Amino acid sequence: MATIIDGKSLANELNKKTKLEVEQLKKKGIVPGLVVIIVGEDPASKIYVRNKQRKAEQLGIYSVVEEAPSTISEEDLIGIVQKYNQDPAIHGILVQSPLPKTMDEPRVTRTILPEKDVDGFHPVNVGRLFANLKGDYPIACTPRGIMTMLKHYEIPMEGKNAVVVGRSNIVGRPMMALLNNANATVTLTHRFTSNLSQYTQNADILVVATGVRHLIKADAVKPGATVIDVGMDRDENGKLTGDVDFDHVKDVAGFITPVPGGVGPMTIATLMQQIVELAKWSD
Amino acid sequence: MATIIDGKSLANELNKKTKLEVEQLKKKGIVPGLVVIIVGEDPASKIYVRNKQRKAEQLGIYSVVEEAPSTISEEDLIGIVQKYNQDPAIHGILVQSPLPKTMDEPRVTRTILPEKDVDGFHPVNVGRLFANLKGDYPIACTPRGIMTMLKHYEIPMEGKNAVVVGRSNIVGRPMMALLNNANATVTLTHRFTSNLSQYTQNADILVVATGVRHLIKADAVKPGATVIDVGMDRDENGKLTGDVDFDHVKDVAGFITPVPGGVGPMTIATLMQQIVELAKWSD
Repeated sequence: MATIIDGKSLANELNKKTKLEVEQLKKKGIVPGLVVIIVGEDPASKIYVRNKQRKAEQLGIYSVVEEAPSTISEEDLIGIVQKYNQDPAIHGILVQSPLPKTMDEPRVTRTILPEKDVDGFHPVNVGRLFANLKGDYPIACTPRGIMTMLKHYEIPMEGKNAVVVGRSNIVGRPMMALLNNANATVTLTHRFTSNLSQYTQNADILVVATGVRHLIKADAVKPGATVIDVGMDRDENGKLTGDVDFDHVKDVAGFITPVPGGVGPMTIATLMQQIVELAKWSD
Repeated sequence: MATIIDGKSLANELNKKTKLEVEQLKKKGIVPGLVVIIVGEDPASKIYVRNKQRKAEQLGIYSVVEEAPSTISEEDLIGIVQKYNQDPAIHGILVQSPLPKTMDEPRVTRTILPEKDVDGFHPVNVGRLFANLKGDYPIACTPRGIMTMLKHYEIPMEGKNAVVVGRSNIVGRPMMALLNNANATVTLTHRFTSNLSQYTQNADILVVATGVRHLIKADAVKPGATVIDVGMDRDENGKLTGDVDFDHVKDVAGFITPVPGGVGPMTIATLMQQIVELAKWSD
């Protein structure tokens, strides 16, 4: 039976640390500030935004939500981003994904100042991560939060075989970079991969981010492996579940994250951590 | 016996195409311009720079070599870069690596305007590549040249297992990105990888860029695989050879690049191709 990686309690710890850092920054006259820009009325996006705002406020972070109608033009949206680029009270700018399909989302992301890019999605920050450059820059929050979990549970990475399933720019690709930078040997798999289980069965560390419910079954997992489930899927009863068949994989794996209570809380805690860092770096 | 990938003749073809493009651009009043900045007296660097300059001139590209003494300060070197950033006659700026060890090379690279970054090393261009963004931007020349070879020889990539040995920012990492973007399943291996041959033996496409002479022997190669050798090593007699034990691997592989005459000529031809593209995109 695997050790269950307790993302919720780890996120609580991280949030406590962040809260302390906010208090210390305030003594120096700096109030970390976040703006979340949301376009349109997508209910899931609205919940995400509300959760981020609530968490920020709990931790003493100044938080603004800017709501734009789905009819806003790309130029006007970019204008809003630029307004916050110039606002010294704001250290992190987050444009809630997805944008309306008519918009060029990478173009909007690119207008966020790299030093206010709290999501780590600006190409210059992506490039720094992939080139493993030194220095202070933001990194995509989900994979960074996973690295925090792996380090906390002292999972060895150097020289280990790591397999990432799914290659989104939000999770899979930056996850690949972070594991590579930690000296794991990383394979990035995706929808075109043939014989996926041939890769996953050899993985010491397996990170799954596909949005395909229970894609990874017990027979696809190496005994003793660390299994990280980024999925947020719904089962037939509407219950939240992951890309990993947790109930059976937990009997094979050495470490495993549950859904919910694994990667999810760590992502939002890492976002908060990163706003405070951006505020510090701007000083 | 493998098909030998003829990098030299493919480079000649590409150079002919580039030369024609230069002529056409000149009719429109645009002369593609390259500056190569070299610091110090490293003999190998001087040869590389001279080769690039000579090739550029052969193709009708305006070419400047700016030589700086090894005693130049980082600020003064950046000043030279900035001068060419503003020079409308120059479309591509290349700072010959390596710089003196006292200098922060990534910082110097970062001062090159991304739209004049002919090497594709600026973080914003690296980030675009890794995120597989659409649009026109320069890409590291060695891996891009390898992609041109793979396409020319109609090597299938989608769904294939690709292994990259060596993770430099000049070859291994961008190679990984390009193969991933072409829908191969890519594993990036490096000095910390344990059981390297376990990976290479399963590779349909194997790209080796380590600087370790004859690291890859015949028993490490899958029968029929495509083997790309980026090595430029010297054997005990001072003869140029690669990271792959060509004489034996050629009996196992399906396709193989020789050294010399494989990747080398394609790199410089790709550099020329890219200068012309930068000139076109600037129009």
